[in-house]
Amino acid sequence: MGTAPGEFEIIRDFFASAPVGEGVALGIGDDCALLQAPASGQLATSMDTLVAGRHFPADADPAAIAARALRVNLSDLAAMNARPLWFTLALTLPDSDAVWLRKFADGLLQTAAQFGVSLVGGDTTAGPLSITIQVIGHTESPLRRDRAGPGDHVYVSGPLGAAAAALPVVLGEQRVNADVQLQCERAFYYPEPQFPVAAAIAELASAALDISDGLLADLGHICESSGVSADIHLERLAVSPLAQTLAAEKAMALATGGGDDYQLCFTVPQQRVADLDQLGLKVTAIGTLIEGSTGVRCWHNGNPWSPAVTGYQHF
Amino acid sequence: MGTAPGEFEIIRDFFASAPVGEGVALGIGDDCALLQAPASGQLATSMDTLVAGRHFPADADPAAIAARALRVNLSDLAAMNARPLWFTLALTLPDSDAVWLRKFADGLLQTAAQFGVSLVGGDTTAGPLSITIQVIGHTESPLRRDRAGPGDHVYVSGPLGAAAAALPVVLGEQRVNADVQLQCERAFYYPEPQFPVAAAIAELASAALDISDGLLADLGHICESSGVSADIHLERLAVSPLAQTLAAEKAMALATGGGDDYQLCFTVPQQRVADLDQLGLKVTAIGTLIEGSTGVRCWHNGNPWSPAVTGYQHF
Repeated sequence: MGTAPGEFEIIRDFFASAPVGEGVALGIGDDCALLQAPASGQLATSMDTLVAGRHFPADADPAAIAARALRVNLSDLAAMNARPLWFTLALTLPDSDAVWLRKFADGLLQTAAQFGVSLVGGDTTAGPLSITIQVIGHTESPLRRDRAGPGDHVYVSGPLGAAAAALPVVLGEQRVNADVQLQCERAFYYPEPQFPVAAAIAELASAALDISDGLLADLGHICESSGVSADIHLERLAVSPLAQTLAAEKAMALATGGGDDYQLCFTVPQQRVADLDQLGLKVTAIGTLIEGSTGVRCWHNGNPWSPAVTGYQHF
Repeated sequence: MGTAPGEFEIIRDFFASAPVGEGVALGIGDDCALLQAPASGQLATSMDTLVAGRHFPADADPAAIAARALRVNLSDLAAMNARPLWFTLALTLPDSDAVWLRKFADGLLQTAAQFGVSLVGGDTTAGPLSITIQVIGHTESPLRRDRAGPGDHVYVSGPLGAAAAALPVVLGEQRVNADVQLQCERAFYYPEPQFPVAAAIAELASAALDISDGLLADLGHICESSGVSADIHLERLAVSPLAQTLAAEKAMALATGGGDDYQLCFTVPQQRVADLDQLGLKVTAIGTLIEGSTGVRCWHNGNPWSPAVTGYQHF
């Protein structure tokens, strides 16, 4: 309304400057984008929505919101060992504020450039603030979650609990010094899709996924998909420095139940463990898969351990 | 919360029963779907969001909302002459009501089956009701909007104005008899993607798009993309029976400015017009493209005509 930009102006002014990358025969501006798929392998696709007030505060830095929205989607590609190619954006905005849009578009296109993924289309609509991104990647060697077997070793690609520990700070519920504030914002808005680890383990791992709902919930998905159970030993788990500032019990609850760290959880058959070790990756072995349907059982220094929180509840 | 289904239950119970179609190596349930692109041609992709209270009434029939959400996306594929393959769904819901979800999923999967497109993934989140769908299709012979030239004839694939005439009825602002009510709901929620026309004209047309924002606005997009202008003669335009029930001036305003009919507007070079005529399609020739940047000029029985409404404003 008035002098606010309409849909076509938004696309042209803020997003159509997106560089046209690999495989893009026709980018933003027609009814569809036209894309050239690689000759071999498979495409991998995923879609995630972030809603203001639920996944981020409505007044958060637009560049940070954009970075997180794209990074969580890229993490799904990483978890399948897929190389990013293209993405589409559905942006719903209460009003079209040019300053907000410029920051959002800059954050989005900067993240896109960093990961080599091209914005090829999307939609802008008026409504409560939310961002849906759909990514398409390419893989010659996909990492699925349904191929794990009993005896496989269970690994996590890095420390857990940072994003969950950061949440009260990001939500403005907890005041901290500027340095910790920055660490919290980085942990929450700039999760690192684990492409290098995924590429390194692709030929060794029997299953993998990214930890978005919490370690126990996500390892539970591997168990359910693969028809196995797991015994894990929490004293082996790498807990992030941000979570370590909390009481030990709380830190462990966040590391096992808090989502949003986007590290990988993956499994490697016993006979490939030596090969994995040879790679010298900074990954942590936390347990073993077993037969049966007992789900994920946790141990801490030899004692049974029960989680206070088992995963992120979307509703 | 409580006994309401969470994300994983929603996906499993309502959507994972989606039949796995052509090219789907791995469907719903992993970090990504894995897709096998056809060996030749190109992929076409588009994304559209419908927001409750803006694009449909929040209390509308969930099956009708689902049908419209998928059909408007399929229309973008039709407009590129792309055959539907796959789609992803981002569904944001204030609460997870099992009755609503069952109706929505039934409407969605029924529409998907009708058009031969497979649901391969998506996301469900809590928040204000909105639906984002992203479709991927395949084309060997894409119809773009930027290849029209001066002298080309301008066509519309069918009558216009039905969806705009139906809007007050759909919004509950106007009471009509049950028969007209049904016609209005069909016009608004069940637009017909013009796949047969697109396939028939693919080798003849210089440009095409679907009319989602209104004829004058969308023909304006062809003109802008192709660097031409247009003269159109409104007495030749097919006005839908639903719009014809209104005063003539109002009917013409809806047929030229109302969006959401999803007919095609396309252009054919002079030397291919005889070939088009031979196809015997029920399309309407409404004018001619000309050189210059005067945009879209309208004539009615030889007199200049100015539109009251030039297109749907997204903000």
